[in-house]
Amino acid sequence: MIGGGEGAFIGQVHRMAAALDGELELVCGAFSRDMDNNARTGVRCGLAAERTYASWEEMLATESALPESQRMELVAIVTPNHLHVPIALAALQAGFHVFCEKPVARTLEEALPLQQAMAENQRLFGLAHTYLGYPLVWQAREMVRQGKLGRLRKIHVEYPQGWLGTKLEDTGNRQAAWRTDPALSGASGAMGDIGTHAFGLAEFVSGHQIKQLCATLSIHAEGRALDDDGDILFRTKEGASGTLIVSQVSTGEDNGLKIRVYGEQGALEWVQRDPNRLYFTPQGDVPQILRAGIDQPGLCEASIDRLRIPGGHPEGYLEAMANLYVDMAQAIRQGQHGSAPGVPSLADGLRGMAFVQTVLDSHASDAKWTPFVDISQIGSGRAQ
Amino acid sequence: MIGGGEGAFIGQVHRMAAALDGELELVCGAFSRDMDNNARTGVRCGLAAERTYASWEEMLATESALPESQRMELVAIVTPNHLHVPIALAALQAGFHVFCEKPVARTLEEALPLQQAMAENQRLFGLAHTYLGYPLVWQAREMVRQGKLGRLRKIHVEYPQGWLGTKLEDTGNRQAAWRTDPALSGASGAMGDIGTHAFGLAEFVSGHQIKQLCATLSIHAEGRALDDDGDILFRTKEGASGTLIVSQVSTGEDNGLKIRVYGEQGALEWVQRDPNRLYFTPQGDVPQILRAGIDQPGLCEASIDRLRIPGGHPEGYLEAMANLYVDMAQAIRQGQHGSAPGVPSLADGLRGMAFVQTVLDSHASDAKWTPFVDISQIGSGRAQ
Amino acid sequence: MIGGGEGAFIGQVHRMAAALDGELELVCGAFSRDMDNNARTGVRCGLAAERTYASWEEMLATESALPESQRMELVAIVTPNHLHVPIALAALQAGFHVFCEKPVARTLEEALPLQQAMAENQRLFGLAHTYLGYPLVWQAREMVRQGKLGRLRKIHVEYPQGWLGTKLEDTGNRQAAWRTDPALSGASGAMGDIGTHAFGLAEFVSGHQIKQLCATLSIHAEGRALDDDGDILFRTKEGASGTLIVSQVSTGEDNGLKIRVYGEQGALEWVQRDPNRLYFTPQGDVPQILRAGIDQPGLCEASIDRLRIPGGHPEGYLEAMANLYVDMAQAIRQGQHGSAPGVPSLADGLRGMAFVQTVLDSHASDAKWTPFVDISQIGSGRAQ
Amino acid sequence: MIGGGEGAFIGQVHRMAAALDGELELVCGAFSRDMDNNARTGVRCGLAAERTYASWEEMLATESALPESQRMELVAIVTPNHLHVPIALAALQAGFHVFCEKPVARTLEEALPLQQAMAENQRLFGLAHTYLGYPLVWQAREMVRQGKLGRLRKIHVEYPQGWLGTKLEDTGNRQAAWRTDPALSGASGAMGDIGTHAFGLAEFVSGHQIKQLCATLSIHAEGRALDDDGDILFRTKEGASGTLIVSQVSTGEDNGLKIRVYGEQGALEWVQRDPNRLYFTPQGDVPQILRAGIDQPGLCEASIDRLRIPGGHPEGYLEAMANLYVDMAQAIRQGQHGSAPGVPSLADGLRGMAFVQTVLDSHASDAKWTPFVDISQIGSGRAQ
Repeated sequence: MIGGGEGAFIGQVHRMAAALDGELELVCGAFSRDMDNNARTGVRCGLAAERTYASWEEMLATESALPESQRMELVAIVTPNHLHVPIALAALQAGFHVFCEKPVARTLEEALPLQQAMAENQRLFGLAHTYLGYPLVWQAREMVRQGKLGRLRKIHVEYPQGWLGTKLEDTGNRQAAWRTDPALSGASGAMGDIGTHAFGLAEFVSGHQIKQLCATLSIHAEGRALDDDGDILFRTKEGASGTLIVSQVSTGEDNGLKIRVYGEQGALEWVQRDPNRLYFTPQGDVPQILRAGIDQPGLCEASIDRLRIPGGHPEGYLEAMANLYVDMAQAIRQGQHGSAPGVPSLADGLRGMAFVQTVLDSHASDAKWTPFVDISQIGSGRAQ
Repeated sequence: MIGGGEGAFIGQVHRMAAALDGELELVCGAFSRDMDNNARTGVRCGLAAERTYASWEEMLATESALPESQRMELVAIVTPNHLHVPIALAALQAGFHVFCEKPVARTLEEALPLQQAMAENQRLFGLAHTYLGYPLVWQAREMVRQGKLGRLRKIHVEYPQGWLGTKLEDTGNRQAAWRTDPALSGASGAMGDIGTHAFGLAEFVSGHQIKQLCATLSIHAEGRALDDDGDILFRTKEGASGTLIVSQVSTGEDNGLKIRVYGEQGALEWVQRDPNRLYFTPQGDVPQILRAGIDQPGLCEASIDRLRIPGGHPEGYLEAMANLYVDMAQAIRQGQHGSAPGVPSLADGLRGMAFVQTVLDSHASDAKWTPFVDISQIGSGRAQ
Repeated sequence: MIGGGEGAFIGQVHRMAAALDGELELVCGAFSRDMDNNARTGVRCGLAAERTYASWEEMLATESALPESQRMELVAIVTPNHLHVPIALAALQAGFHVFCEKPVARTLEEALPLQQAMAENQRLFGLAHTYLGYPLVWQAREMVRQGKLGRLRKIHVEYPQGWLGTKLEDTGNRQAAWRTDPALSGASGAMGDIGTHAFGLAEFVSGHQIKQLCATLSIHAEGRALDDDGDILFRTKEGASGTLIVSQVSTGEDNGLKIRVYGEQGALEWVQRDPNRLYFTPQGDVPQILRAGIDQPGLCEASIDRLRIPGGHPEGYLEAMANLYVDMAQAIRQGQHGSAPGVPSLADGLRGMAFVQTVLDSHASDAKWTPFVDISQIGSGRAQ
Repeated sequence: MIGGGEGAFIGQVHRMAAALDGELELVCGAFSRDMDNNARTGVRCGLAAERTYASWEEMLATESALPESQRMELVAIVTPNHLHVPIALAALQAGFHVFCEKPVARTLEEALPLQQAMAENQRLFGLAHTYLGYPLVWQAREMVRQGKLGRLRKIHVEYPQGWLGTKLEDTGNRQAAWRTDPALSGASGAMGDIGTHAFGLAEFVSGHQIKQLCATLSIHAEGRALDDDGDILFRTKEGASGTLIVSQVSTGEDNGLKIRVYGEQGALEWVQRDPNRLYFTPQGDVPQILRAGIDQPGLCEASIDRLRIPGGHPEGYLEAMANLYVDMAQAIRQGQHGSAPGVPSLADGLRGMAFVQTVLDSHASDAKWTPFVDISQIGSGRAQ
C-alpha cells in the first residue's frame, strides 16, 4: 500500500476491506512521507520494519528485487490524486498489479500515459469506485440489462455532501486540504472527487453513455480555488436524459449518493445510505422492495455473489470495497491482465476523467450543450 | 363553480376543500357543457335546478342580477386552462371574487389583461396552488425567513409523475386529453401543469426569485404535441443555484413533489407525499423531524393556523386546498381586495406564466442561460 | 350534534368529516352546557339560534316535533363517555339514527340497554371507530379475507401515545380531564380510550376473535385514577396469537396506531401515521408496497370506494372519518336500520366494551389467561 | 476457531469480523467433523494443514503444547449450542481465552460449571451477542445512563424472523436442522436462539433487570419439537414494564430486531436493519435522528470508538461483531481476565440462560407472573 498513513481516511478503509474476506494480505507499505507516521502505521498494520518503506520509489525497487514468492503482487494506491499516475506508471513498469483510488488522475491528459503502460505490461489495473461494489447496484444494472425497465427515459443521479460547507481546509483537516488544492487534487474539486462517483454509477447502472451535457459549477466557501458544488443536465447516446447533482456544501448531507432510473416498463431507485434496499416499480403494478441478503428472493447471481450474509443483517461500505478487492484477488489468481472482471478499469477511469474535462469545458462555455470529450481511441475494458 | 362536472378531477377536490371548514357554501354552478352531466353534477352537489346553469356566461349574468344577499360571492374556476382567462375576466367585471385553477392562463400574454381587470374591479383573485396550503410548507418558509438556514446556497425542487408515461390521451382519459392539447392546455404541457407547482414552491419557501435558467424539455410519448418532461438548472437573484426536475413520464412516480433547501446554517427537506414531516438539519448538529399537529413543538403560527388536529393524525391534500379556501373566505369577509393573505395571487400566477415562457425560450435556445422574463412592470402582490 | 363545543376536540373533527363529501348537513346542535360556548359554537357552525339548543334533551324534544322534512335525521354524539348511553337511548327512542363516539359506554353493563332500544326502534346505530374508515385498512382486511396471507399466525397491534405522559389533567386541559375521570370516562382510561381502537382494528383486519387474553395495566402519572398504559397477550378463536400494546405515556409518540398480521402465506403492515401505504410481503417473494389512490394498482373495490383522489396526494384522518359518515348517509338514504354497512355497529361497540371488561378482569387476576367476556347472546351486526 | 466449516453460517461471520480490524489472526481451526469439509475450510482460511485439526480436543491439546509465542491465544467457539460448554470448559482449562457463540449453553444448569472454570483459570470469556457491538446501541445505553430519558417507563423489544416459517429443517438446511433439535439447541428454540438477543439488548440499553415475566410460546410448524415463536410481558426491578416479542415464523421478517425505550424525559428507538440511525424524542421537543459516523454530532465516546468511517457510509453487522473482537483483543493485550470491557460476559450469558429458563417456567405455568430465576449467587461481570 502506498499512502494511507495516520490522518488519512481511505487507506484504513482499503486495509479493512482487503482483510475482510481473507483473500489478500498486506505485506508492505509506504504510508507517509512523515517517517514517524510511516513507522507507526507500519507497526499498526503488523508489518516488519524492513517492509515499511520510506518512499514508494524505494518500495517498488526493493519489492521487485524480492523473490517472486515473497514479493507483493498488487499495489494499492491511496494517496492524494497528484500521485496516482506517477505511482501507477512506476508500479506497472515494475511488474505489479495496481488498484488505484479514484479519480485516476488530476486531468484526462495526465492519465493518458497509463494506457501505454498497460499495453506494455501484462498487468491488472483496478479503480476504487467503491459504490460499484454494492450488491444491489449490480442488481439494478442487471435488471436494466434484462429489460425489466424497458427503454430508459430518465436518469437522475446525485451525490450531496455537506462536510466542506465551511472552510475546513483552513482548520488543519488534511482530507479537506488536499481535496481543495488544485496541485494535489486536479482541475476540479467536487466533480473530480465525488462527481466521478455519481457519473460512474449512472453509466454503470444504466448501461448508457453520456453524449452531451450542460454543467454549472460553484464555489461557495470564499477563497476556495476549486468547485465545491455543481449541477448538470445530460443526454445519453441511447436516448435518455437526466440530471447529475453534486455538492460538498449541502449542509447536513452525508454521502447521500442516490440513483433513479426510469424506463418505459419500470423504475429503480437506490440510495447508498440504505444500500440493502432497491426500490423497483413496474409500470402499472405495485412497487416492490428488493432486499439484500444471500437468502433473499429476486436477486441475480452477480448480486448474490457480492453478499456474505442473509437478509436483515446489513452489509455496508467496507463490504462494497471488499467486493472490489475480492474481484482483484480472483483476477490475479487466474492470471488475468488488463481489467479485472467486476472492477472498474482504466478505461472507466479515463472516461471519468473525460467526464470531468467535459464538465469543466461546459462550465466555461456559454453554449447549452457541450459534447462529451471523445476518448474512443483509448480502448475499452469496462467492468463486466 | 365553473367546470368540475363528472369525469373532471379537480372540481370535486375544490368542492370538498371548500366544504371542509364550513366557511363557504356552494350555491350555484355551470359544471359542464354536456347538459346531462351538468344537471347530474348539480343534483349531486345539492343545488336547485335554477342555480345549475347551462353556461358560465349565463351563470355570471343571472347571479349578478340577484339581490346581494342571495348571489354568489366567489367564482371557483376549475376548467381546463384555455377558459381560465375569459371566465376570470368576465367574473371580475361582473363583480365577483375569483379563485382560479393554475396555471392562470395558457401563455403569459394571455394572462396580462387580468391585471387591468383587477385594477378596475376591487375584487380578490386567488390561485389554486394547493401545495402552498400545506402547513409545513409555511413552516419551511418561516424557518428560512427567520434565518435558521442562514444564507441559502442550493434549492432542489422536483415534481415527478408517471401517469402520462403511456399515451393515455388516446384511451378516452379526459384529464390526459386536455392536458396534452395545446389549444386547451397552453404552450407547455408538463411545465405548465406541474412545473409551475415546483417553481412556485421553490420561490415560496426560499423567498428567492429565479433570475436565469437553462431548460431542456422532452416529449416521450410518440406523437404527443407538448412536453411531458423537462430538467432545469437555475440561479436566483439572491445568489442560490439549483435544479428543477419535472416529469409526467417517470414510471411509477405519483406526485412526488419534493423540495430541499440548503443554507449556510441549515437545510430543510419536505415531500408532498409525506406532508406532515419536515426534516431540518442544523449545520453541525443533529437532524430534526418537525411533525405537523396543533400540539406539536417547534411550529410557527402560520403553520399551526393551517392545521386542524393534533399530531399523528395525518392531514393531507384536501386540507391543504381547504386552507386556501379558508383564507379566501376570510379575505372576503374582511372586505379585502387584490390578493388574499395566504393565497397565491395574480402576481404569483403571472410569475408562473413568466416561468413557463422562460422555460420555453430556454429550451428553444442554444445559449446556456436564459434570463427570466421580465414582468417587473406587472405589479406585485405575492401571498404573505 | 350533541357535544363538541369550543375546547372539545372530536366535535369539530365530526363536523369537518360530515361536511367533506356533501352528503350530510349540520342542522342543529347542543354543543355545550356553557351557554356562551354553546351559542358561539352554533354561530360558528352557521346554525340559526333557534336550532342551537340549550340541552340535548331539549334538542331531541324540539326536533322530533318538527315536520319530517325539516327535522334532523341523525344525531352525532361527541360528548365524554358518560353521556353516550343516555343520549343514544333517548335519541333512538325519539326516532333518530345515532352516530356515537367510542367507546359506546363507560362499562359493558351500561351499554347493554342499547340492544333493547335498537330492537324496539328501527334506527341505525354507528360507532366512530375512525381508523376503520381508512381505505387501506379495508384493503388489508380484504387481502386477509381473500386468503393472500394464508392461515394467520400472529397479530401485533399497538397504539402508543405520549400526550398524557405528564399530569395534563391538572393543567386545565379538558381532553385530559374527562378522560382521566372514572365518572366521565369509565372503568378504564387508556384501554377504553384507545385500547378499543387497537382491539377493533385487530379483529377487523384479521377477521379473528380474541378468545382469551392476559393483561397488565399501569398508572404512570402519580395520583391518576385510571390506567394510562397496558400490555396484553392474546389468543384468538381461530388459532392466532399476538400482542396488544397501548399507552398514553409513551413519551414522544403521537397516535402511532400500527397493525401487523402474519400468515402462512404472507404478512401485512399498516401504520396510521402513514396511512396511504400498506406493506405486503408474500412468503418467499419480494415485499410490496400498496399505495392508496383511486388510480393505484392492486387495490380492492372496498378500498377504492373509500378514496377520493389519485395516488400521491395523501388523504388522512378526516377523510377516514368522512368515510364513516358517507356510509351512514347512504344507509339512511336506503332506509336501512340496525347497522350501516361499512360502519362499526352497536355489536362492535359491545364487543369493545367486553374487551375492556376482559382486560380489567385479567389485570385483577393472577391467572395467566382470562377468557373473553361472553356476549354471544347480545346479537350481531358487525361492519361488512 | 472451533466449528464454522462449509455450510455453517456464523463461522465465516466470525472470521471476517476478526480479520476486519487487523487485531487478530486466525492461526488454527477444527472446523468440521467431516474431514473433507474441515480440510477445505482450513485451506480456504489459509491455514497450514498441521494447524487444521481433526477435532477440537486435538486442537486444544496440540496448541497448548506449542511455545507460547506460536500458540493460539483465543478460541472462538462457533459450533451448535450443545458443544459450547464442553469446549469452553476444556479451552479455559487448557489456558485459552474463549469467545463463544450465544446462547452460552442449552440450559442454565449446563452453563453453571463455567463459573468454576473461570474462577480457576485467569482467562477471558466473551459471548458473541453481536448486536451489542453496534455503535448506536452503545449510544442509546449511554443516553439512558446520562438520564436523557429520565426514569424509564416502558421497554419494548422484538426480534421477528420469518425464515423458519416453513419446515426448513426437513429440506437439508443445516442451520434449521440443529436449531430445531433439542439435543443440539437446548430446551428452547426461538427464545434461546434470538430471544436471548432481544433480552440482552433490552437489559443492556435500559440498564434494568427483569424481575418477573409472563410468557407464552408457540410451535407453528407442525411436528417441530421446539418453540418457534413467543410473546412476553415483563416488569423490571427498577419499575419499568414492557413486552418482548420473538418469532421465527413471522413471514417476510428478516432480523427485525428493534428496541424502544420510553422514559419520563424522552424516548429512543433503534432498529438493527437500519443500524446507523437512532431516533431520540425529548419530552415536549422536536424528534431527533442521531446518525452514526466518526464525524457526527451528538455521539458519545463509546459510540465513536466503535465506528470506523464518517457518516453516511453505512457500517453493518460484520462491523458490530468486529467491535467485540477488537475489545477481546484489547483485553488480551492488556492481560485482563474475567470479562473483557465492552464484550458480553459469562455473567451475561448465564443471565440469558436464566431468562430462557424463566420463559419456559412461565410458559408451563398458569400463573400470570413468574419470578426471574435467581442467579444472584453466580457472580457478576457484565459488559461495561
